[in-house]
Parts: sequence; structure tokens; C-alpha cells
Amino acid sequence: MSDTAQQAIIDGASRLYIIIGDPVAQVKSPGVYNPKFADAGMNTVFVPAHVPSAQFDEVMRGIMRLGNLDGLMVTVPHKSRIMPLVDRILPMGAKVGAINAIRREADGSWTGDMFDGTGLIRGLTRRDISMKGRKVMLVGAGGGGSAVAIAVADAGAAAVSVFDADSAKAEALAARITQHYPACIVRHGAVAFEGHDTLINATPIGMAPGDGPPVPLDGLRPDMLVIDIIMKPEVTPLMAHARALGCAVIGGKAMLEGQAEQVVEFYRIGAAP
Amino acid sequence: MSDTAQQAIIDGASRLYIIIGDPVAQVKSPGVYNPKFADAGMNTVFVPAHVPSAQFDEVMRGIMRLGNLDGLMVTVPHKSRIMPLVDRILPMGAKVGAINAIRREADGSWTGDMFDGTGLIRGLTRRDISMKGRKVMLVGAGGGGSAVAIAVADAGAAAVSVFDADSAKAEALAARITQHYPACIVRHGAVAFEGHDTLINATPIGMAPGDGPPVPLDGLRPDMLVIDIIMKPEVTPLMAHARALGCAVIGGKAMLEGQAEQVVEFYRIGAAP
Repeated sequence: MSDTAQQAIIDGASRLYIIIGDPVAQVKSPGVYNPKFADAGMNTVFVPAHVPSAQFDEVMRGIMRLGNLDGLMVTVPHKSRIMPLVDRILPMGAKVGAINAIRREADGSWTGDMFDGTGLIRGLTRRDISMKGRKVMLVGAGGGGSAVAIAVADAGAAAVSVFDADSAKAEALAARITQHYPACIVRHGAVAFEGHDTLINATPIGMAPGDGPPVPLDGLRPDMLVIDIIMKPEVTPLMAHARALGCAVIGGKAMLEGQAEQVVEFYRIGAAP
Repeated sequence: MSDTAQQAIIDGASRLYIIIGDPVAQVKSPGVYNPKFADAGMNTVFVPAHVPSAQFDEVMRGIMRLGNLDGLMVTVPHKSRIMPLVDRILPMGAKVGAINAIRREADGSWTGDMFDGTGLIRGLTRRDISMKGRKVMLVGAGGGGSAVAIAVADAGAAAVSVFDADSAKAEALAARITQHYPACIVRHGAVAFEGHDTLINATPIGMAPGDGPPVPLDGLRPDMLVIDIIMKPEVTPLMAHARALGCAVIGGKAMLEGQAEQVVEFYRIGAAP
């Protein structure tokens, strides 16, 4: 209840965007997108909806028929499950196998895409960092890791090595990268820094108080780029260690900002009608 | 985008109230209830949802399962159709046969009630006008007229006469009043001012530019109370005529304000948890 441009004043004609998750209370996107709608002069509000997993299909069938709903954002654990409910999935979403933003087209149909990984690439590009030719050691093959891996390969990485404590997940993600980017050298298995110039953490390890780095950091070199997609804390134990060593270090803010830019474009916020 | 207390700033933990209608763009309730939630310091927003009649059941089954939905407001044409979807209907809603506000109870169940008519009674009470012993000529037996008729009888009117251009509707409403208030003298048929001390317009006639009064006003007397439930314009042709004649005249604002007071109580906005 402070800044006057934080969100549109809601009336009967307001259009809706809804972020769905289970839970949803932790999401930050209303605070990201409501000011953008307000700045664009749009009578549109972005609200959270707690969609219980056990009733996902029934709830979504209802929500997606609302006449004044223009878009959805999707968070854990619904990013894959939402896919059959949209009419059209853009290439990045199809390659990742999950989507996190959906818009309603003029004809009423729904288009979905995934911006978790490409948002990171956009954020890096804004900081003049390219993935072209890089040899990436990726830690974490869950939802975030999958999106990052595909986006990194798509951005021209020469090699992507995947580690996950669940080795089946790492193997499945490696196969998915190879399927879509056969020229990329893909490995999975143990963590290795040798032969890699980039380390990306896509696990949640580093968020909780008392967490250490997600993997042992022996062998990390000062010439390596270290990226952590964790938003909070702003400096994770991995980032602190890498900075002390002299590495270039990028935190979760880059991904957040890059993704917001892309989603604004995808939702056509402020675009001429 | 002006006053800072107009509504809560939306975040992931925001709770939702949704007003459903088809159409919904005309509703004023977001502007009525959002400031009340904000003033009460509640992280709650009230948003409109266009629920197409053709997909009512499917949409409502979805919406009512949202984990962060605390209440619904219902407008035309859904006020009767929503009834089977709630667990409990309070007496006024049951007597009217329609509900316009629904709240989620602590146990997750839904309670609905109708405030269209009792809101008018509250607004009149605030103006020191009682319905006790009154002989009311009611014009209009649609949704608004039904709610007003039952509330007027409930508030102690001695007689209620119902006129509607659709005489079957007038007859059905008369039967409904008699069923619940057997001591009230109920008639239906032609408009008559003789034997009545109060005229209530519950039709939309008077809203459109060029509209005249809803019925011929020959025989209206200066000693009569004239009530028009139309919100816009503030002074309808009926009200202008009645004022010129010297009648006491009450416009739609009384009903709007009275209903808002009651709905705030029903939703327990600002109440201790």
C-alpha cells in the first residue's frame, strides 16, 4: 500500500492474469507484473491462485474458461501438467517438456512457452555474457535445471555436463539435450570442473540457512564463470566461495530480470493492439 | 491509480474474493470492497470474473476449489444457478430463491445469502425509515423485485402488491411472499396507488436515456414514500416526478450503501479472526 503505480485499480472491466501453483504464497510475480500492466495503462491485474494438485484438472478446466482471463503463469508443480490443456506450445517449451507462461490469443486459443532457461540467457546477454562455445557443468536436473540446460544448449554451448543426486534424472535430461541439440557434447554423471569453463547451480541448495554449496568446490578455478539461479539469498554460499576465489559470478537476479523482460514480450504488455 | 488505500498490494499470499457475472464489466463491487479490505489491513483482493452462462457449472466447479478463494459475489444471471453449489443457504436467500454473496467457512464449506433486498432495508433504517405496517406497491417482479419484496415483508410490511408486465412473474412472486409471510396481505395485478403508502420501482426502467417512469404516475400522492432501486442516474424520471409532487424519495444509493454494510459483516471484513 505505497506506490500509486504498483497496480491497476480493479473494476468490473479489469482483465486477469493468474499465477497458479501449489503452494503459491511464495511467488513474487504479482509484484513484478502488476507494475508493468499499470505502467502500460492496462486495466489488468495479476493475482495468485492456489491450485491444489489433487484437483488440478477440474480447477484448470474452470479457470481457463473465464471470459476475462488473458494469461496464466505456472509454477511448481504444474509446469508439465498444464501442457495438454493448451492449444499450442512454442519450441522452447516443447524441448524442455514444461511451460511456465500461457497467453490467450485473439481467437481464444491458448499458447504456452517456457522462460525459466531463456530468461537466464537474456539476463546474461544483458551483462554481455554469451553461452556460445561454453563448456557447462550443470548441477541439478529438476525443472529449473532442465529449462536451463536446454536454453544453454540452444544459446550455443559446446558442451553440457549434467549432475544430479538422482542419476536417472541426470541421464534423462542428458538424453533430452542430445535429442534436440545433437552437436552439443553432452555428458552426465559425476561433478567435474576440468574441461569446463562454466558452473551452473540449478538446485535449491543454498536457499536454506545453514546450507553449504550444492557440490564440493575443490577444483573450481578463478577463470570459471559461476552462475547460481537461486534468488534468495542474494549471495549463496556457492557465490561467496566463487567470488573469494576470483570467479566471475552471476546470481539469480539475472534470470529473474531476463525472464520478466521476455514474459512482458510474450504477454505483449504495452504492445500496440 | 490514485488513492493509496484503494486496494491491497497483491502478492503471492493474497487471498481472493471473486464477483461472477455474465457480463461482469458493469459491476461496481471491486471499487466498493477493495478499499474495505485495504482499510482492514487484509491481504485480500476482490476481482471480477466473467463466467459464461453456457459453461457455468464447469467454471464454478473449478473456481470454488481454489485454495486461496475466501468468497464470491454473484450477479446476473447466476444468482439462482449458484445455489446448488453451496453447502448452506441462510434464511433470506432461501426465501428469495437466489443468493448474491457466498463465503468460505473455516471448515472449507460454503455459505450463501441474499442481500439485495435486506440491503435496501438497512439503507432505509439508516435514514430512519421503517417498513413496519407499510402498504407497498412494488413494480417489477424480477430478481431485484423478488429480493426487495421478501425483505420488505420480512421487515414488517402490512401489504405488498406486485405488478410486472409479465403477469406470471408477478403471480409467482406474490405466491412466494404469501408462502413465507402469511400475515402479509399480498396482491398482484394492475398498478394501484390507492390503499398504498409506498411505491417501489424494482425494474430497470429509468436507467436508459429517454426512459420515462416505469408506470403511469396518475394518482401518486404527496404523502407517499417513493423508492427507486436504480443506481444510475442518481435521479430517475420517477424520482424527479415524485419529488416535484412533494413525496419523500429514496434513490438506489440507499440500497447500495446498506448492502455494502451487510456484506462487510457477512464476509467478516475487519472482524477479529
